[in-house]
Amino acid sequence: MKPRLDTQWWSLITRALEEDAWEMDWTALGSVREGQAKRAEIVAKADGVFYGADMAGAAEYISEEIGYPIEMKVLLKDGDLIKKGKPVVKFKGSARGILTIERPCLNLMSYLSGMATRTRDCLEIMRFAAKQRKMKTLPRLTPTRKTLPHYRDVAVSAVIAGGGHPHRTSLSGGILIKENHIRSAGSITKAVDGIRNIAPHGLKIEVEVTHLTEAREAIRSGADAIMLDNFSPDEVKKALELFQSQAFTGAVEVSGGIHEGTIADYVLPGVTLISMGSLTHSVKAVDLSLLFDP
Amino acid sequence: MKPRLDTQWWSLITRALEEDAWEMDWTALGSVREGQAKRAEIVAKADGVFYGADMAGAAEYISEEIGYPIEMKVLLKDGDLIKKGKPVVKFKGSARGILTIERPCLNLMSYLSGMATRTRDCLEIMRFAAKQRKMKTLPRLTPTRKTLPHYRDVAVSAVIAGGGHPHRTSLSGGILIKENHIRSAGSITKAVDGIRNIAPHGLKIEVEVTHLTEAREAIRSGADAIMLDNFSPDEVKKALELFQSQAFTGAVEVSGGIHEGTIADYVLPGVTLISMGSLTHSVKAVDLSLLFDP
Amino acid sequence: MKPRLDTQWWSLITRALEEDAWEMDWTALGSVREGQAKRAEIVAKADGVFYGADMAGAAEYISEEIGYPIEMKVLLKDGDLIKKGKPVVKFKGSARGILTIERPCLNLMSYLSGMATRTRDCLEIMRFAAKQRKMKTLPRLTPTRKTLPHYRDVAVSAVIAGGGHPHRTSLSGGILIKENHIRSAGSITKAVDGIRNIAPHGLKIEVEVTHLTEAREAIRSGADAIMLDNFSPDEVKKALELFQSQAFTGAVEVSGGIHEGTIADYVLPGVTLISMGSLTHSVKAVDLSLLFDP
Amino acid sequence: MKPRLDTQWWSLITRALEEDAWEMDWTALGSVREGQAKRAEIVAKADGVFYGADMAGAAEYISEEIGYPIEMKVLLKDGDLIKKGKPVVKFKGSARGILTIERPCLNLMSYLSGMATRTRDCLEIMRFAAKQRKMKTLPRLTPTRKTLPHYRDVAVSAVIAGGGHPHRTSLSGGILIKENHIRSAGSITKAVDGIRNIAPHGLKIEVEVTHLTEAREAIRSGADAIMLDNFSPDEVKKALELFQSQAFTGAVEVSGGIHEGTIADYVLPGVTLISMGSLTHSVKAVDLSLLFDP
Amino acid sequence: MKPRLDTQWWSLITRALEEDAWEMDWTALGSVREGQAKRAEIVAKADGVFYGADMAGAAEYISEEIGYPIEMKVLLKDGDLIKKGKPVVKFKGSARGILTIERPCLNLMSYLSGMATRTRDCLEIMRFAAKQRKMKTLPRLTPTRKTLPHYRDVAVSAVIAGGGHPHRTSLSGGILIKENHIRSAGSITKAVDGIRNIAPHGLKIEVEVTHLTEAREAIRSGADAIMLDNFSPDEVKKALELFQSQAFTGAVEVSGGIHEGTIADYVLPGVTLISMGSLTHSVKAVDLSLLFDP
Amino acid sequence: MKPRLDTQWWSLITRALEEDAWEMDWTALGSVREGQAKRAEIVAKADGVFYGADMAGAAEYISEEIGYPIEMKVLLKDGDLIKKGKPVVKFKGSARGILTIERPCLNLMSYLSGMATRTRDCLEIMRFAAKQRKMKTLPRLTPTRKTLPHYRDVAVSAVIAGGGHPHRTSLSGGILIKENHIRSAGSITKAVDGIRNIAPHGLKIEVEVTHLTEAREAIRSGADAIMLDNFSPDEVKKALELFQSQAFTGAVEVSGGIHEGTIADYVLPGVTLISMGSLTHSVKAVDLSLLFDP
Repeated sequence: MKPRLDTQWWSLITRALEEDAWEMDWTALGSVREGQAKRAEIVAKADGVFYGADMAGAAEYISEEIGYPIEMKVLLKDGDLIKKGKPVVKFKGSARGILTIERPCLNLMSYLSGMATRTRDCLEIMRFAAKQRKMKTLPRLTPTRKTLPHYRDVAVSAVIAGGGHPHRTSLSGGILIKENHIRSAGSITKAVDGIRNIAPHGLKIEVEVTHLTEAREAIRSGADAIMLDNFSPDEVKKALELFQSQAFTGAVEVSGGIHEGTIADYVLPGVTLISMGSLTHSVKAVDLSLLFDP
Repeated sequence: MKPRLDTQWWSLITRALEEDAWEMDWTALGSVREGQAKRAEIVAKADGVFYGADMAGAAEYISEEIGYPIEMKVLLKDGDLIKKGKPVVKFKGSARGILTIERPCLNLMSYLSGMATRTRDCLEIMRFAAKQRKMKTLPRLTPTRKTLPHYRDVAVSAVIAGGGHPHRTSLSGGILIKENHIRSAGSITKAVDGIRNIAPHGLKIEVEVTHLTEAREAIRSGADAIMLDNFSPDEVKKALELFQSQAFTGAVEVSGGIHEGTIADYVLPGVTLISMGSLTHSVKAVDLSLLFDP
Repeated sequence: MKPRLDTQWWSLITRALEEDAWEMDWTALGSVREGQAKRAEIVAKADGVFYGADMAGAAEYISEEIGYPIEMKVLLKDGDLIKKGKPVVKFKGSARGILTIERPCLNLMSYLSGMATRTRDCLEIMRFAAKQRKMKTLPRLTPTRKTLPHYRDVAVSAVIAGGGHPHRTSLSGGILIKENHIRSAGSITKAVDGIRNIAPHGLKIEVEVTHLTEAREAIRSGADAIMLDNFSPDEVKKALELFQSQAFTGAVEVSGGIHEGTIADYVLPGVTLISMGSLTHSVKAVDLSLLFDP
Repeated sequence: MKPRLDTQWWSLITRALEEDAWEMDWTALGSVREGQAKRAEIVAKADGVFYGADMAGAAEYISEEIGYPIEMKVLLKDGDLIKKGKPVVKFKGSARGILTIERPCLNLMSYLSGMATRTRDCLEIMRFAAKQRKMKTLPRLTPTRKTLPHYRDVAVSAVIAGGGHPHRTSLSGGILIKENHIRSAGSITKAVDGIRNIAPHGLKIEVEVTHLTEAREAIRSGADAIMLDNFSPDEVKKALELFQSQAFTGAVEVSGGIHEGTIADYVLPGVTLISMGSLTHSVKAVDLSLLFDP
Repeated sequence: MKPRLDTQWWSLITRALEEDAWEMDWTALGSVREGQAKRAEIVAKADGVFYGADMAGAAEYISEEIGYPIEMKVLLKDGDLIKKGKPVVKFKGSARGILTIERPCLNLMSYLSGMATRTRDCLEIMRFAAKQRKMKTLPRLTPTRKTLPHYRDVAVSAVIAGGGHPHRTSLSGGILIKENHIRSAGSITKAVDGIRNIAPHGLKIEVEVTHLTEAREAIRSGADAIMLDNFSPDEVKKALELFQSQAFTGAVEVSGGIHEGTIADYVLPGVTLISMGSLTHSVKAVDLSLLFDP
Repeated sequence: MKPRLDTQWWSLITRALEEDAWEMDWTALGSVREGQAKRAEIVAKADGVFYGADMAGAAEYISEEIGYPIEMKVLLKDGDLIKKGKPVVKFKGSARGILTIERPCLNLMSYLSGMATRTRDCLEIMRFAAKQRKMKTLPRLTPTRKTLPHYRDVAVSAVIAGGGHPHRTSLSGGILIKENHIRSAGSITKAVDGIRNIAPHGLKIEVEVTHLTEAREAIRSGADAIMLDNFSPDEVKKALELFQSQAFTGAVEVSGGIHEGTIADYVLPGVTLISMGSLTHSVKAVDLSLLFDP
């Protein structure tokens, strides 16, 4: 499943060119003849999962607009494996154009493929744990709202490319009652009632709880989904027992400081999804490098 | 030294609000009364170096513009130490305003403080190495052009807050002849001559070299600075001997895949600066958390 | 419940001033002395329901920015009744400023109050019908996606001010499977399965059906809500019987060409909401008029 | 006569896509395969006059930019009759593209064709009245400045498509002295003199009057055109006698609360133009509907 | 008469700061302490006529937004005389703020005051000629459409500050039939008729003619104003005789390559206005200079 | 050497069309039939040096976007000589498109070619002087930061087209310590030290001095370049002697009120560059004119 974001690629790459003051690139202007043509490749210097295939259209378009036309062929599809030592992108055309455009593309691909890679790595751990526990379905893995301004949509899409799922992508596109909302409303029940009264009928109401007493109130209030915040695996198991005893059939989300070292313990029957802020807020870029005349 | 970027904070936070579709936040609209006031804090859940103090002005301004006025007091100055468990920001005012504004601020602070923190960590390793080698001056530590679109200026400033120095901040603000420029021009000498012919007189010419033969040509061509790309520490030492023998007095930059585990070996007398792309491209966010009624 | 949109008011009013080429208003420049102060009022020439109170902040701010400061006091709150002959807004300050700013404000208030008024009128019909049928709860009244570019958020808010409810406010904030999606997917079941597989867990799945056979398939497919498209009141009753027999407990939406003359017949027990595109696409502006020195 | 506004279509449709958060359309992403192609039609469900032919170019361009290319063929020219049951637009190409683009186009066409339709309807009444009174020339029918921000130019063009004429399209493009200007200046004569002194020589000076005494002063002041505001048909006739007796040969505009039920009475020899705010401020959208695989 | 353009000042100064990459001004950051306060003056190094007083508000606002607040007091009003050696502007506040803001302000004031100065100089020549010829009224002096993108409104306003008058300020705000329009339409009469048929009733129709035969046709076609293009003073006199003989009472414009050396010869009874493109397209900036601690 | 700026041309021309309210050009709409095609030429009415060749791509693109497609062929390359009476541009296509687009292009070409022309004229004087003094190398001629907002890059490029060189193009792209910085820092030495401490290693430090004592301090402080501000030719000679005696080998810039009448006296061995603000701030536009059916 691949959301398309070409318009946004256009805006991100254009912004990068402005920050680079590309049209006064003395180094390129003095060393590359106008009209000189070249071939070049972006080669992987590490393994990973790729995201960013759609930026090629925007990059080619911009290269024409700035008068240095290039062809940019992305060799991988979103979600494909990046192999160390293998080419990822092939460029052809204006040498100045390649030098101007490659850096924003490489920076964006490294960053977003880093998200896809971490998502895939976590899912592999989850799959292994689920197999051992003979679970038939795997919980979903999702990001949170911890994305950088200008990167919400591409970050969500990168996580999807890595095998993850979207959480709510905006405040208007989902309901999540957190501790601070409960404190403002007075109680979980008051918050749920107040929101049900005004929100679109198509949105489920999810409540974040920090202990079992809150979980019980959330069920009684008619919540459609419950997020267990900062629960240990054992606490999660107790909550799942409660849900079963109360015949709660809504989604169960586990969240809060989960990472590669702990995620396996949360892969339990009854857990619908695991959300991890670090999928998008702490990214190890996939190492990519440009080479002329490969 | 602290570049000011308030205008950019304004643009980044505004964009985050748009991505959040903040004005249709059903959760807050249904659980927080219009006009309800609150106090809240952003508290550190990890140690680090802070960057982002100036965003408070923009955040307060935006909170008024959207009709939910808040006061936002940042307790640290850029470059100050973040202490786990201690508050970083205090909010006061419209509860809806706090819920709308805190997330973009927290996301930005976590990300940029992550850069400042890594810079400081590397500099501490460098300082230790320099002390052992009884060096009087420490090489500079700088980022590269590997920043995300929309984040060039704040990333450079975050590195400065961590004790680092700026490299060229745009293509018009510095000259760096890389392998691909040399291939396009035909030789280092041709590239240097071509660029000297057109570039502003106030810019030094730096040449990236991959082995000693190129380094020799760079010196002969009159380069003002030389970057040793992907040299091992031993190769760097040989290059430094060459520079001494040739009375090359320009800046010497060491670059290429350097990280916390290897940086100490490059802290050598004669090295002017060490540049590390990962300072800005692979960031571990500093963990921060919001609390109402602290 | 009142979403705040000041930022958008700012953008709408500013755009209106640009379209007016306000800074070259020869009529005002030649007839009103610089610095001349006036009082003025916007008076209602018809009854209605008001929406647009929040634009005053933006209007005052813009009046200062263009160098003609005014005070603008809106006498009604969103959702209040507009009474023919009564003042709605009071202005004080630069006469040139009032002449420049009042027209965009008046145009926006007339248009959006027209939406609020029609919503209220329809709800009164619905309340009367519900009373006669001794129904305890009233179906919700909602708009559709038929809003003009730049007016989605204010249109939804105006309908809310008139007593209505929001439908999904963007394609990412709700799921509605229409005839054309079913044709693309091959069947209702395939569409529901495909979407459940990729959409955020917090969104309910609503299916639009055109006859009872489709309604049955929608129930079997596990749809969370069903929209009856272009059903006559009798057909709606049959569908409601089906839902009861199948123990379908999701929301039931009635839609398609409903207007003031027919809406009463759709106010039936079991109908959760009635959506009406004309609430926002065919608006009779509430007549408002400006008067100097009132 | 058809002003071209493609740039503006581009901006309006793009904005609609943003408001729809089109790139996260879970319904389409889950039910329509990437690459799936379709044909579709927009069909009229009511009669009317068409406006909006030029948006096809912008729509096709945007569909390519977002990676879902479509062909959009508008079957009518601006000003053509829309016939109930007949197709208005044919689409071909990416099914996702059609679903994304059709709604903004349909919303815009419905709204603007509504303006063109009302203009034509009023002109037919005027033509009938003129014929009965054996008048050789028909007064012009024009809109006022009562248009929504972002819609000034397309609204004026829609009225022209319906057979109407433009009034001044901005404050810099015409002079109209209203009651509030007269109060500010002190008298009609002072206002006319002040404006003549500063305004471009190419603009006529029009004065709005509310009774015959003012009309006399307007003539004496040298006004080039006079608007009779809220005059009854009998009062208009008296004013026209006055103009004849004073040999006033400028344009005579009739304005103020005129509608379909009263307009015929103002079609009088000597009336140059009738202006109607409701042509653009109170629009009944022409009902249009999309159909896949027609 | 002074059109206000504060919004535009804001946009022009902001753009200048972006082009300067102001937030990375290493010179100021390294030599001026944060928080250091200063006084400074812009002093005139030449005589002239001032334009640009309104930019102070925007400049102060921007200085706060970037975190370096200053006060900026403009000592002259638009149209006042600039005296060599006298101060024009006084600054107070953040030294970094003054250094950042003064340059865009100084550049804009120099450029626009240059236009005002040239207008005044030409008008003095015209006044002298009119006196000698005992004319009671002076022809107007106007610019043309030859202004730089982004500067149309401020350029027109600068000319007004110098004593000139506006010509049409946009294509929608005036009608001027030139040679190329006549060639397209087939004849002057066809062009006039075609335009009268579609243009707003409030616009006069002006025709540019290149010889007397065309002037005669223009009169017959009912033109409201006639522009004599590239006529020598003697040819203008013959045209004026023709106009008198034909009782043409519309405006007479003289245009085409007129400059300080020739303008006096065109100051003739019967000439309504003289337009000079060079008022705005060839500007000698008024020399201004900044001084700290004056 | 020719920086490319197509993106900026697009923005400048688009802005011009908006200022013209191009889509309501009553003159063209009424006199030129839709679809009417024409040929046209821009012809030079004066000699000069051309700059602006790259705008053709943007102009053609915009003409398509507005629905009036034209071909625009620029007959000269940047830096070529403009010959009075010869064509500079050929247009073909929509007559309305030519009338809409030509004026912004002509205005921009006239203005920027004016800068290129003045640069070339000054360089010819400099070449003559250098020849007489038997100098082997010519000092560079550069502009300053005195450019209009929105025109920095095109102005620098126009000067380059005329044979000149760039100075720093932004505050982040060069270091220039002026009198006001020295006053803020306390001394030249303090300013140089402070800046060296924080600025990127790739930037040279240039100091502006007003007398020889300052020049001496600048040398001692380690400045890389020195600007002699408002020195008479004799004072420059004394400074050059000082530099020789102190073995100062950095760049020597001469600046301050230099013009065509005085520039020859500054062409001295040892002077590296002469900067002239008037190259960009006081421009005599090159006279160009449009002709249909040439």
